[in-house]
Amino acid sequence: MKRYKATISYDGSGFAGYQVQPDSRTVQQELMKVLKTIHKGETVQVVASGRTDAKVHATGQVIHFDSPFNIPLSGWLKALNVLLPEDIRVHAIEEADPSFHARYHTSGKTYRYKWDRAPIISPFTRNYMVHVKQRPDVEQMKQAAEAILGTHDFSSFCAANTGVVDKVRTVRRLELEEHGEELHMVIEGSGFLYNMVRIIAGTLMEVGTGRRAASDLAGIVAAADRSKAGKTAAAHGLYLENVAYES
Amino acid sequence: MKRYKATISYDGSGFAGYQVQPDSRTVQQELMKVLKTIHKGETVQVVASGRTDAKVHATGQVIHFDSPFNIPLSGWLKALNVLLPEDIRVHAIEEADPSFHARYHTSGKTYRYKWDRAPIISPFTRNYMVHVKQRPDVEQMKQAAEAILGTHDFSSFCAANTGVVDKVRTVRRLELEEHGEELHMVIEGSGFLYNMVRIIAGTLMEVGTGRRAASDLAGIVAAADRSKAGKTAAAHGLYLENVAYES
Repeated sequence: MKRYKATISYDGSGFAGYQVQPDSRTVQQELMKVLKTIHKGETVQVVASGRTDAKVHATGQVIHFDSPFNIPLSGWLKALNVLLPEDIRVHAIEEADPSFHARYHTSGKTYRYKWDRAPIISPFTRNYMVHVKQRPDVEQMKQAAEAILGTHDFSSFCAANTGVVDKVRTVRRLELEEHGEELHMVIEGSGFLYNMVRIIAGTLMEVGTGRRAASDLAGIVAAADRSKAGKTAAAHGLYLENVAYES
Repeated sequence: MKRYKATISYDGSGFAGYQVQPDSRTVQQELMKVLKTIHKGETVQVVASGRTDAKVHATGQVIHFDSPFNIPLSGWLKALNVLLPEDIRVHAIEEADPSFHARYHTSGKTYRYKWDRAPIISPFTRNYMVHVKQRPDVEQMKQAAEAILGTHDFSSFCAANTGVVDKVRTVRRLELEEHGEELHMVIEGSGFLYNMVRIIAGTLMEVGTGRRAASDLAGIVAAADRSKAGKTAAAHGLYLENVAYES
């Protein structure tokens, strides 16, 4: 039995999220369907670095699975991409140590959140970026981001009732990037609470559009109270970009 | 009665093409549905610069329509974009001379054809670019393009049985542009025959991948015979980018 680690991308538009659920099309279900075909009807478990919600995209999700088959890596890559639907692609596959675990061994994740500032949103980006009609003040958003950086109890930025007890996380990097009309928030951290990236994005955009002051952010973090932060930004602007592992 | 000229974009993925046809979702049908709503049930004809086929996109299609309503241009823009589905957007609208005609008065059109040369196509571009697995030789494609430029009988590059008698057209510009992994063919001309841009794209790519020689192109043009040219390239790589009018 060999363990394989694969890096995959998916367009979240057509999925009810990553994780298998009844009567819904999910990324995990499509992956398992293809592996079952390759393994002649045997179920093969697929473990990802973590779930992503409905409409959320991934450019660098990492999964692992086990197989008794002796297929060269180029053969795996080809077979998976031929059998998978076009909205999921496998970009790289490698043999991993049998102890490797895509979820338990992550040392960090990077997410990207994309806004489109064009006066009229393009029909080509409507599922891939979130339109902001009012021109945001990016400098204010950058100032606000300073208060998020570092190690904090992120209760203010976590969906209520998640069952997670320890809400202390470390945000190592939080940058606002401008690419023409696109505005991206790139966030890298040790790990993220449920909806944390989208609540941070939503709160920073409320600063950008003048509904909150950048100087309020430190207080919002300190409050450790979800009701103090901004709205959860829409799912379709979010991309899981990279998953890091202890090496 | 006022005549309006509007520049629109659409994601062709969800349409059976521009022109109204029974039991299919088309761009013209969606436009007319919205104008009918605005005009309280009265049918308003919409005339475009020309049709586009199923899956073909537009970033700069031009339409005209007449309305007795006295709505300011900013109001038209807002109303149309609120009522239209998200895969059609109106980018600009202006009042035109009552004699202006979106189809009859065109003086030229620009199309863009997009290929993705990435080893594995991204799930995000699968409906918007055509994947080429083999790395094409762009220099050979540029050489081949030279034979297309200018005024020719383009019968070799026109779908058979179109009923059009005069197949002489002028290609004013034909460029291959590289943008990272993307390869674009930009073509501008006085007018185009049915499938002409896609047959030119398909033929140039056959040169790029070594299935034809660049030096064959002059002979293919001179033959005035559809069977001599390459395959019609897939619809979803094609964009109507600009329509020019005599001013």
